[in-house]
Amino acid sequence: MHSVAGGVALWRQIADAIRLDIVGGKLANGDRLPTEALLAQRFSANRHTVRRALAVLAEEGVVVAEQGRGTFVRSIRRLSYPIGKRTRFREGLKGQAASLTSVSISDRIENATARVAVALGLKPGAKVVRTEGMSVADGVPISRSTTWLSYRRFPDFASRINQMGSTTLVFGSYGITDYSRASTRISARHADVEEIQSLTLAPGAIVLVSEAVDVDPEGEAISYALSRFPAERMELVV
Amino acid sequence: MHSVAGGVALWRQIADAIRLDIVGGKLANGDRLPTEALLAQRFSANRHTVRRALAVLAEEGVVVAEQGRGTFVRSIRRLSYPIGKRTRFREGLKGQAASLTSVSISDRIENATARVAVALGLKPGAKVVRTEGMSVADGVPISRSTTWLSYRRFPDFASRINQMGSTTLVFGSYGITDYSRASTRISARHADVEEIQSLTLAPGAIVLVSEAVDVDPEGEAISYALSRFPAERMELVV
Repeated sequence: MHSVAGGVALWRQIADAIRLDIVGGKLANGDRLPTEALLAQRFSANRHTVRRALAVLAEEGVVVAEQGRGTFVRSIRRLSYPIGKRTRFREGLKGQAASLTSVSISDRIENATARVAVALGLKPGAKVVRTEGMSVADGVPISRSTTWLSYRRFPDFASRINQMGSTTLVFGSYGITDYSRASTRISARHADVEEIQSLTLAPGAIVLVSEAVDVDPEGEAISYALSRFPAERMELVV
Repeated sequence: MHSVAGGVALWRQIADAIRLDIVGGKLANGDRLPTEALLAQRFSANRHTVRRALAVLAEEGVVVAEQGRGTFVRSIRRLSYPIGKRTRFREGLKGQAASLTSVSISDRIENATARVAVALGLKPGAKVVRTEGMSVADGVPISRSTTWLSYRRFPDFASRINQMGSTTLVFGSYGITDYSRASTRISARHADVEEIQSLTLAPGAIVLVSEAVDVDPEGEAISYALSRFPAERMELVV
């Protein structure tokens, strides 16, 4: 067993120390890390322990090992997604990526769970349209969203979004020329199996989760969206 | 080796499925999980694999194993912290906890890093007051914050906060009767060693990180705070 300080295994302490060097600017994007031998010396650890720490950092996407060249700090540029009363996804990320694509994955009609019903002001079990979508910036997935809407009010929302591509245009086609964000709830958790696959994440990766309700000018809820953003690629700005 | 679907180990798939049962309400707070034997049957896994999945969930704080009684869904109630232009920490959490305590851990004078200088509108290297603090709700740590302020403007901020206890009162004592939030940046990452210890988290736990700048009525930055909230205990509401 490795030595443990305050219940924290040595390999994790090493990983944390290297992460701090990166966050604190001692190691910059693209820098080569010290060799395993030097790291082992610095932390009074054996090389197996150092290797485990580096493997964890590689899995988190913090460093990249290059065959025969060493381990390097990965260049990470997080996109900043502004959360405001009138933010539209595309506008919010403008200028941060050369290409920005939103894709519909699937849709279906289902009965509202208690949570969806409360968010949309419907009775539990009411028919709702559920759409699954993804956004990709410069070829990298940056969000995975599930959106629910009243079936009664927006019966063919899914087919219209597939035709028009933009939520703003679809709401416009239903006569809603303006809408705004009523509330956003932000939490974080480990990505689940589906998210690991669709967002191309490593097991153990973290997603920021936002739950948002949009309302029409009369204040009526028109959509409830649960969006998952890879924490290593996105941050939210209020 | 365990069987793997889409690159995801079976124990992780089992952990994710149980987590989904909890999130989806099939398993409620305090419920006893099915026995290891039943779980092994459900997932076509051996008991060693099931045990590994349960160990991961226990480490995340999602379930609790009770000697001789089985494994139970841990009662988790997340506190919701509202982020608004004029939110004060204590007010924001009012009614959600019986006791709410903020503690100063330490303070020092240092030179502003590039990041702190930009946030506070100072020259890099300018003298700043840095305070370390923690908040505890009903005996459980809910945040760990580091705050920087201009030393020139608030030379004895640290001693005043120790006397007065409240940031609002201290700013008031400097003649700032009102202040508001200029911006908040929200991200998430794994807790580091210090946070695991101070926030009493399990290794691998997630923290929500908020970076906030408060400004006086003239729009001048008065404080820059980096707060870490255990994701399992807190969510942020915009």
